[in-house]
Order: sequence, then C-alpha cells, then structure tokens
Amino acid sequence: MDKNIPYKTYLEESEMPKAWYNVRADMKNKPAPLLNPATHKPMTADELSAVFCDELVAQELDNENAYIDIPQEILDFYKMYRPSPLVRAYCLEKALDTPAKIYYKFEGNNTSGSHKLNSAIAQAYYAKKQGLKGVTTETGAGQWGTALSMACAYLGLDCKVFMVKVSYEQKPFRREVMRTYGASVTPSPSETTEVGRKILAEHPGTTGSLGCAISEAVEVATHTEGYRYVLGSVLNQVLLHQSIIGLESKAAFDKLGVKPDIIIGCAGGGSNLGGLISPFMGEKLRGEADYRIIAVEPASCPSFTRGRYAYDFCDTGKVCPLAKMYTLGSGFIPSANHAGGLRYHGMSSTLSQLYDDKLMEARSVEQTSVFAAAQQFARIEGILPAPESSHAIRAAIDEAMKCKETGEEKTILFGLTGTGYFDMVAYQKFNDGEMTDYIPTDEELEKSFAGLPKIG
Amino acid sequence: MDKNIPYKTYLEESEMPKAWYNVRADMKNKPAPLLNPATHKPMTADELSAVFCDELVAQELDNENAYIDIPQEILDFYKMYRPSPLVRAYCLEKALDTPAKIYYKFEGNNTSGSHKLNSAIAQAYYAKKQGLKGVTTETGAGQWGTALSMACAYLGLDCKVFMVKVSYEQKPFRREVMRTYGASVTPSPSETTEVGRKILAEHPGTTGSLGCAISEAVEVATHTEGYRYVLGSVLNQVLLHQSIIGLESKAAFDKLGVKPDIIIGCAGGGSNLGGLISPFMGEKLRGEADYRIIAVEPASCPSFTRGRYAYDFCDTGKVCPLAKMYTLGSGFIPSANHAGGLRYHGMSSTLSQLYDDKLMEARSVEQTSVFAAAQQFARIEGILPAPESSHAIRAAIDEAMKCKETGEEKTILFGLTGTGYFDMVAYQKFNDGEMTDYIPTDEELEKSFAGLPKIG
Repeated sequence: MDKNIPYKTYLEESEMPKAWYNVRADMKNKPAPLLNPATHKPMTADELSAVFCDELVAQELDNENAYIDIPQEILDFYKMYRPSPLVRAYCLEKALDTPAKIYYKFEGNNTSGSHKLNSAIAQAYYAKKQGLKGVTTETGAGQWGTALSMACAYLGLDCKVFMVKVSYEQKPFRREVMRTYGASVTPSPSETTEVGRKILAEHPGTTGSLGCAISEAVEVATHTEGYRYVLGSVLNQVLLHQSIIGLESKAAFDKLGVKPDIIIGCAGGGSNLGGLISPFMGEKLRGEADYRIIAVEPASCPSFTRGRYAYDFCDTGKVCPLAKMYTLGSGFIPSANHAGGLRYHGMSSTLSQLYDDKLMEARSVEQTSVFAAAQQFARIEGILPAPESSHAIRAAIDEAMKCKETGEEKTILFGLTGTGYFDMVAYQKFNDGEMTDYIPTDEELEKSFAGLPKIG
Repeated sequence: MDKNIPYKTYLEESEMPKAWYNVRADMKNKPAPLLNPATHKPMTADELSAVFCDELVAQELDNENAYIDIPQEILDFYKMYRPSPLVRAYCLEKALDTPAKIYYKFEGNNTSGSHKLNSAIAQAYYAKKQGLKGVTTETGAGQWGTALSMACAYLGLDCKVFMVKVSYEQKPFRREVMRTYGASVTPSPSETTEVGRKILAEHPGTTGSLGCAISEAVEVATHTEGYRYVLGSVLNQVLLHQSIIGLESKAAFDKLGVKPDIIIGCAGGGSNLGGLISPFMGEKLRGEADYRIIAVEPASCPSFTRGRYAYDFCDTGKVCPLAKMYTLGSGFIPSANHAGGLRYHGMSSTLSQLYDDKLMEARSVEQTSVFAAAQQFARIEGILPAPESSHAIRAAIDEAMKCKETGEEKTILFGLTGTGYFDMVAYQKFNDGEMTDYIPTDEELEKSFAGLPKIG
C-alpha cells in the first residue's frame, strides 16, 4: 500500500466542483455543428428549442465558455450521491501482480446504477426552470431511463420513457424501478406515435432499437404542449454535465499528488468517456500536460475503430438533426448476441473530432473477454460491474499486464460507470459458458454505410 | 441546511474503528446460553466447534471482553467498501416539513447490497485462518448468500449456499450473482442431504423455508471434511461483527457534535439492529447516556411484539442448538403474501434479553405501509431501499411526523441496511396495487407456540 493513498478518496463537500467544464472551449477544431435534415444548414437555436429546453440549447451550441456554473439546486442534488469515490484498486493490483497503479472512478453508487444521473438531474432541472410539465426520452439498457425518472420524481416533473421493446420485455425490473419513480414506460416501437406506427407497419414484430425509441420520444415531445425531449448521451450538453466525473477525479488526484498516465473509458455514445476525460483533455489541448486516452468499444458495435467520420442520422425515423460523427450508419443494428449497452450506431461529435485529431486512441474488445474481466474484477474488488463499464476494466487490466511485462509503474485511471444488477441474464449466459462473440463483416458495414446521407 | 452538517459524513480511513464492540460485556443480564438439543445443557466450546470455526466459537461465548480487535486482513477488506456514509436526510426532512433531524447510516453501497458483508468477511476470514476448505450456509432473500460468496471469492474459499427454493426460483438474478462470485447454489430442500430428503418426503412440493435450509447447510458442514457452517444473523458473533455499523455511526456523530435521540432499525434475526445500536446501548447500559431505541418488524412475522421469550429450535430439522429468544415457534411460516425478508421465526438472544429488560422498544408495521414509505423515500432521497430496510424508514417517517405535531426537534437515526434491486417483484405488486397485508391470528400463533420445546 502506498503511504498516503487510501483505498478510497472522497472530496469534501466544499471541494466539490461548482462549475462544469466545457472542453469545446479549448478545442482548436470545434465539433461539427448539427444540421437541419431538410436544408443541411446548421441548426439554429430557434430550431433546436422546439426539441430541447432553451438553456440546454444554449449549452449545446456554446463552443466558447470553458466553465459553466452549476446551479445551486443541482449542486444540492449532487450532494445526495456525490462526490463519487476515486478508488485505488490495491486488491486488483495485487492479484495481477503488476507494478501499475490502478485507480477507478466509481459512478455506480446511486440507485440509477450509473453516471447517467449527472446529466439527468441537469436536464430535468432546466426543464422545470422553463416551466415545462414534463420530458420525454428513450432508454435501451435502462440506466438512462432510471436516472431520468429519479431526477423527475425529485423535481415533480412528468417523465415519459420509450423503452426499446426487447429490453422492456427482458428487463421487467428496470421497468419497475422507473415506475416506482413515477415514470410512464412505453415499449417501443408503439402504436402511440405516428413514427412508431410507421415502423411497426414496415417491420411487423420488430423488437425495437434505440434509434426507433428516439424518434418516438422526439415526436411526443414536439407534439405535446409543455414537453421537451432529453437525451442521455452523444450531445455536447451531456458531455458538459458529465464533466463532473473528470473534475472530481482531477481534484482527488491533485489532492493525492498523483498524475495519471493512461485514462480509459468505455464508449457507447460517449457520455461517460467525454465526462471522465474532459479536464485532462483540456490540459492536453492547452499543452499543459500529456495523457494517453483510450476509448474502449464493443467489437460488435465498433463506431470509432471501424466507422466512418461523416454526417449521419441520429435516429431511425430520421426526425432528428444530422450529426457529424464516427458512425456505423443509422441502419446498423448490433448482433442479437450482444449482451450489454454500448449499442448506439454513432458517437459524440465532440469525441469524434478529438479522435479524428488523434488526441485519443480507440480499441474494440469482444464480449466474452469483457465478461471474463467483469467476473475477475467482481471477485477481487467486490463490485459487480455493468457490462458497459467492463469494457474499460478489460482494457485497464490489459494495460496493467503490459506494465508487468515491461516493469513500468504506470498510473492508470479508468471509469467504472455503473453496476450490473440488472444485467444478470448476460452474466448467466457467461456463467453457463453460452456467451459468444460477434464481429460484423466488412460487407455488413459497407451495406450500412450506403445509407449515410449525402451532404454538401 | 444546518451549518457544518454535510449531506454525507464519511470517516477518514484513519478514523475507522479498529475493534468490534461486544455489548454483552456491558449487559447485567447476559443473553441465555445456547443449549444442546439432546441434553438441554449449555453448549460447550467443543460441541460448538463441530459446527463453527474455533475463533468464532470463542466470540460466540465471550460475554466478558468489551472490545475485540478486528484483524488487519478484515480491516483491509472493510476499506474496499467502508466507511459507509452517515447521511443527513435533508430532502426527506423538507418534504415532510418536520422539525426533526433525520440521519441514516447507509449500508447498501456494496455489491451484496446490504450490511451482511460486514460479518461475511469476518466469518470467511476465520474459516480461512483455520485452514478450512470452505463454508456452507443458507440464504433466503439472498443478501447473506451474496455477501458470503463475495467474501469467499476474495479469500479463495469454497462456498456452498442452500437457497430457499421459492427464492431460488423467483430470484434467478440473485442466484446468478452468487454464481458469478463462484459459489455453488442449491435449492432447498434438496435431495443432496438426509434432512432435505426427509423434509421432501414429509412435505412433497414444499417451496422451502429458512429453517429447512439451515438444517441442510449444517448437515453438509458437519459431514464434510474441512467445512464449517456460517450464519448471517441471530448469533452473538454476528452482532459483534455488525457493531462496525454503530461504531462508525457513533464516530461520525461525535465528529459532527450531534447526539441522536431516537435510534431505529428493522429486525429480522437482529444482525443490523444489534450492530447499529450496540455502542449506543453500551452507553445506556453503563448509564452514560440515554437513547430511545426502536426495533421495527413486519406485522406478518412479529417475534418481538407477539412472540414468546422462550428456548426454541433455530431450524426446521432441529439439528441446531436451542436458543432462548423471542420466537413465534420454529413451525411458524410467514404468509406467502409477505414480500420482503425479515421472515425468521426467532430473534437474536442478545436483543431478546435487552428487549426483555425494557432497554428497547419494538413495533410492528404492515407491508403496504412499508412499501409506501419505501416509494416515498426512493423518490425523495434517491435510493431504492430494500423492503427490510423500509420497515425502519416507515418508523422514522412516523416519528418525524410526530415531531411535526409536537414541534420537537428530535434527532432520529435509522439504519438503511440495503438496496432493493432484487426485490422488484414486490415493488411491482405495490406499483400495481396488488399488495395486501396479513396479520397472523392469535389461534395461528398459539398453534405454533405449542411446538416450543419443553425445557427445565
């Protein structure tokens, strides 16, 4: 055990960040703007405000202000479950017999089970402040829907969740958590929206996708008085709110007098990774420090490592603005054997630009190796990780084992975004030796890329 | 918000307790000894050591030493998930509009989802130290089995869990968590033990009970070379280990300069309540301070409030020592509509004696009112509580509302023992308005009391 480095470091309330950090302010190449799908011109604040709350539109478009104050009401809510601990993984280090020093920022210690609550409370707060009645959203694995229903219950806001039908049926407990928090949960695609009926007519018996559920949630938000749509990942505003993860991590490291060498996060839409790395990336962009930053994605849904950097649709119904991002094409649907989350076809525009500028790396990992890492971690560190988070665990263990070979004492930080309590069907498959891997073929991807919109 | 009282108080690692507190040392009337079921004479250390590890036998019988050092290995494990936070429930206070100051000690922030891990690691450690191969146990709702399998995985010890059949079938995810931690899980009653086969022959199609599962686990432990039996509640040794909850709470209160007036805990076998209250009860026993201490139990399984204080069997197969305790009779089985844990027919001997000496109160609450409190708490404080813990929430809210009537600014501490992630079937019943209450009739209890053994 290193002297002066405890197992867990908690900031005092007085040390908690009071402003979010907007990494776009320090980016030389700004992320590409959202485009109007009809005109292919950048979306204006006016256009966006039909979908999002006004203050969130401002945050979405703000590429200039490096710090945005966190309102007091959100700071108070954060105090209920934050600061999250920065954990030194002494037991894992010992089990791996590595000279590497491994840390993780654990975001699973709240009922939503993940980091999603950091942005849910912010988005719900601005909706409430604007005098809205409620918000709509989609959820896949269910972490975002749970987080949003918690935030809405706290603020007394109505919450309508469209849950991908296959998850709705396979994860009844997730649904019940949301209902316990007072949300209405509709399996998507549904007969309750025009786009849902259209999708059902075209694909009878479909079990849905995140892209379908987004289209339905946006339709309801834009057609119901006093409602707006909110999204749990991908957007600039979400990365902004999630910067709390990185800011707390950085503050805790500074307190300990430690500087990480490698920062690792799992990447689906990019919310956790973007949040975790933001203040470190800021230092890198400003030339103040250097870090190796690694995004880890599933081999079955490899947007960074095998996708195209192009404008694409964000949803199946094509009602949303176009985003420039690393994408597999909006028609891409990960193989049914894919067990966890991280199944969105695209990636945050901000992270896509940083990746394209070679300021970070990416790698893909197969799910059986991810669950092996998850099980190993659970048995050693005593936390049952979410499948999503376990992608980062896999890469962190791999990097620590490289240190063992080379003898380097690198300091590794990874984001442990959440817990796997609602993913036991996947763990059961793994425990029973029935989990398989899947990697899309080049032909499949080419077919999907053919659906990319032609821009400019 | 009170100045200087944060939402959450964490002790520093250096402030964490280094010894458990043994409340029996300060009790004038010691808890009655365990009796040999054949001879009705007090169990000797030798007799007990066929069932339990030697060091745990010593702890079980130790009524003299007030403090017992926590071994370094256990302190290290505790550091992975402890200290647990002492939370000031500002949001709940505001929602209730009460002058009461409400605190809770939250033990759910670890993968086992409850306080059970505090004793699981201790019991597994002593088994390992004795050079054993493994341990056996029973589990009902699954929190104890999960905690034990985590502790055994960490120490490299085999873990055989007998899980009450109805839970095994209704809670497949609990089972999978234990399997992920490498435990073997057998539905009880099973064909793998003599007592199991006997119970199955007498009650074909039975869905099991905690009492059956205990009998099977004890049989396997006592008939397998290198194995001992461990138990998650009721025993003196378990209350000793769980004193870490109360010691941390007390240390945190002392740090804040606060003294609670009322201390509330849910009571099944008594492990959490006994642990939470122990240092406060110690002060009370020594005449140094006074506290109102309230045990809360389900109206459907009311051992304190409607049971007899008598020697009884601890298990269905009657293979275990007899314990003097408040009991409903070992043949008592709570109504099938009972949703949560807290379904053991008896109660810790230590707590039984303290209750009989009028050093604490008890009350029973009905489950629909418990789930109403659970839902209210979840929406306000952002934690989805376990049904067991919610009994304490119910009583804490009731006490806070009394303060609102009287205007008294009482300080209330309650134990929030765990999370309800694996209890969503019960929440669903409540959400759908299908949950009902059940109170056993006097006739039912009398019938059950008739089965009490005749002693002396």
